[in-house]
Amino acid sequence: MLAEIITIGDEILIGQTIDTNSAWLGKHLNAYGVEVIQISSINDKRESIVNAIKAAESRADVILITGGLGPTKDDITKKVLTDYFNAELVQNDEALVNITQMFESRGRQVIQVNKDQALVPDNCEVIQNAKGTAPGMYFEENGKIYVSMPGVPYEMKAMMQNDIFEKLNKHGDNYTIVHNTITVIGIPESHLAVSIESVEDNLPEDIKLAYLPHLNLVRLRLSGKSSTRTKTELLADIELNFNAIKDIIGDVWFDGDRSLPEIVGELLKASNQTIGTIESCSGGFIAHNITAIAGSSSYYKGSLLTYAYEAKVAIAGIDQDLLNRVGAVSEEVCTEMALNAKKKLEVDYCISTTGIAGPGGGTAEKPVGLVYIGIAKPDGTVEVKRCEFRGTRLQIIERTAYTALDMVRRNL
Amino acid sequence: MLAEIITIGDEILIGQTIDTNSAWLGKHLNAYGVEVIQISSINDKRESIVNAIKAAESRADVILITGGLGPTKDDITKKVLTDYFNAELVQNDEALVNITQMFESRGRQVIQVNKDQALVPDNCEVIQNAKGTAPGMYFEENGKIYVSMPGVPYEMKAMMQNDIFEKLNKHGDNYTIVHNTITVIGIPESHLAVSIESVEDNLPEDIKLAYLPHLNLVRLRLSGKSSTRTKTELLADIELNFNAIKDIIGDVWFDGDRSLPEIVGELLKASNQTIGTIESCSGGFIAHNITAIAGSSSYYKGSLLTYAYEAKVAIAGIDQDLLNRVGAVSEEVCTEMALNAKKKLEVDYCISTTGIAGPGGGTAEKPVGLVYIGIAKPDGTVEVKRCEFRGTRLQIIERTAYTALDMVRRNL
Repeated sequence: MLAEIITIGDEILIGQTIDTNSAWLGKHLNAYGVEVIQISSINDKRESIVNAIKAAESRADVILITGGLGPTKDDITKKVLTDYFNAELVQNDEALVNITQMFESRGRQVIQVNKDQALVPDNCEVIQNAKGTAPGMYFEENGKIYVSMPGVPYEMKAMMQNDIFEKLNKHGDNYTIVHNTITVIGIPESHLAVSIESVEDNLPEDIKLAYLPHLNLVRLRLSGKSSTRTKTELLADIELNFNAIKDIIGDVWFDGDRSLPEIVGELLKASNQTIGTIESCSGGFIAHNITAIAGSSSYYKGSLLTYAYEAKVAIAGIDQDLLNRVGAVSEEVCTEMALNAKKKLEVDYCISTTGIAGPGGGTAEKPVGLVYIGIAKPDGTVEVKRCEFRGTRLQIIERTAYTALDMVRRNL
Repeated sequence: MLAEIITIGDEILIGQTIDTNSAWLGKHLNAYGVEVIQISSINDKRESIVNAIKAAESRADVILITGGLGPTKDDITKKVLTDYFNAELVQNDEALVNITQMFESRGRQVIQVNKDQALVPDNCEVIQNAKGTAPGMYFEENGKIYVSMPGVPYEMKAMMQNDIFEKLNKHGDNYTIVHNTITVIGIPESHLAVSIESVEDNLPEDIKLAYLPHLNLVRLRLSGKSSTRTKTELLADIELNFNAIKDIIGDVWFDGDRSLPEIVGELLKASNQTIGTIESCSGGFIAHNITAIAGSSSYYKGSLLTYAYEAKVAIAGIDQDLLNRVGAVSEEVCTEMALNAKKKLEVDYCISTTGIAGPGGGTAEKPVGLVYIGIAKPDGTVEVKRCEFRGTRLQIIERTAYTALDMVRRNL
């Protein structure tokens, strides 16, 4: 089955809200064998809504509409749909009970605009809203399915999970769709493409390869779509091709859709080792990346964030004479930072960073973007890399973090 | 001018990537008086691209296309556009030099697929890519503007900021468009709307008010758009109305479009005070937010990131007996963390956090989302707030950081 998503509301068009609903829908619909072929974000004008629905129904079997179901005057999705299907608004008792209970449980009075949310077109099947007041609407007209849901992410998700996925599933369809992803690290996209060209060129017609680069990772996705082969057959073929790719590129891939901090975390867990950090110019961003991963407390111990000169001496025990002689941004200080923090934090690996993130503070000798990254290792040695990063302050911080994590990865 | 955005690539449709480019474009185009009327995300099939462009050009003056410019076979946007405009691919020397330098500076070899990225349709104006290899393309055909850019956010943003906004601005219509923003902190959007209703209702016809809430901030934007009044006149009128708003809401506004870490930084600088942090559950995210601001080294000294139990004892000197008695996630430990780190870092203010970010690790007594935030103050006292945040691990980390920074702000 082919689906389109229409999100209604100015807030997405003026950039006030990032549309996360569509990504969630896309991911989950795929798992049910429904392929999303277009996502359209439009404003809440009648003409825009009607035109978007007409365009979508000309291409897709299922049209999922989110947004525009609120109680205020600018929300017109329900009215437009009622007219579009030449229907009449009728009261849905179950929705009214839900709305009344929702307000009473919060100690608020139900006013007329709230009650009006229980009015629904008489040609739809009502999808009750477990998390809010506006009911969803499910239409089957002219061989197509139309679903209208609130734009509030958790209300929409509850409707999909409680009702809609099952309904779509029953409708079924003749295509089997499967995806699988591996994450490749340390090979630029273009070089990767050349080296695995032979595999790509020999893929069966119903399997497609996509490259999804992000910083120093490339995710490779193989997607199978077939009306004749089973899920098992497609997955077996995908595995075969991934194995061929893995054989070519060697030991730089991870199964699934991974981030670098996840990969480093898994390698540390697998080898039962721990890590700590001592950050200067990266300002806590490496720590944040590591600790954003659930379960990181099993391998991450902590950090010393020695942003100021004084802090380098006071909390990391860096020699004041050394600082005076070579400056904070130097190989020597980077090395001492890594060693001292490794000892204090009692970890197997310790990352240290010191550099100039800019935009101010650069000199001819030590320009903005100059960063030293150190990795203190279990054997007591320190590997130091001198980098000259380009970009904004945030990009330099980001590149420092990813380079550091990749240096650790290469040691694991 | 009316604009549409077309994003090309399966990764958005299958939910592997959330489209953040469109929100960024929508927000910034608005500031240049360009109104986005539709965003369409489509797959990278020739037919889909051609149909989306045809639909967009029937409604809008400017069509901004992102994605599909990579060096690999699944990227076909450039080919489709070349055919669409009946153009021929020709080599752009400047783009080739850029590509070569980009690879050489990273010590990588330039291969043919990389060189091919310098081929562009002969009817376009090439937009050089300061941050990557694929050049952008700017077309003016049949009275419409078409821009094709990479999907990589920082490459796209650099092209918009270096070239495209200025080009669109020159095209402009005959309207004068100005925007000005103030940032209001600590008043919920709905309350703010009620209290400044009298100002909003009396705005001249050519000035509009927009509310842009984000966490505990609301940005208020006044936009003037006029074909009869000058920029100076509009700006004077905007200032007048902002002054009326400021009179009503009192001392909780900042000029311009600010973030909470920026506001805290300015207040610290103005009062010549310093800050440090000691983070457990927020895992360095507060430090990252503070140090992401240029110039933060003048007030931010550093952090102790005591993620593990042992680190709390070893590097923050938390009493082992206390930890055993009340646990790491407690008011007592939060207080001691703030005090000890304030002393070690020699700062005026010190933020401490300890809590359970989840998804694991919660108990009935100390559930996921329970976070203690402490602020050690110049007078040696500590203010502790007990919070129960809901949401994902990352949301709990983010809410912890913003609540902590707002607690500091209230003290400044």
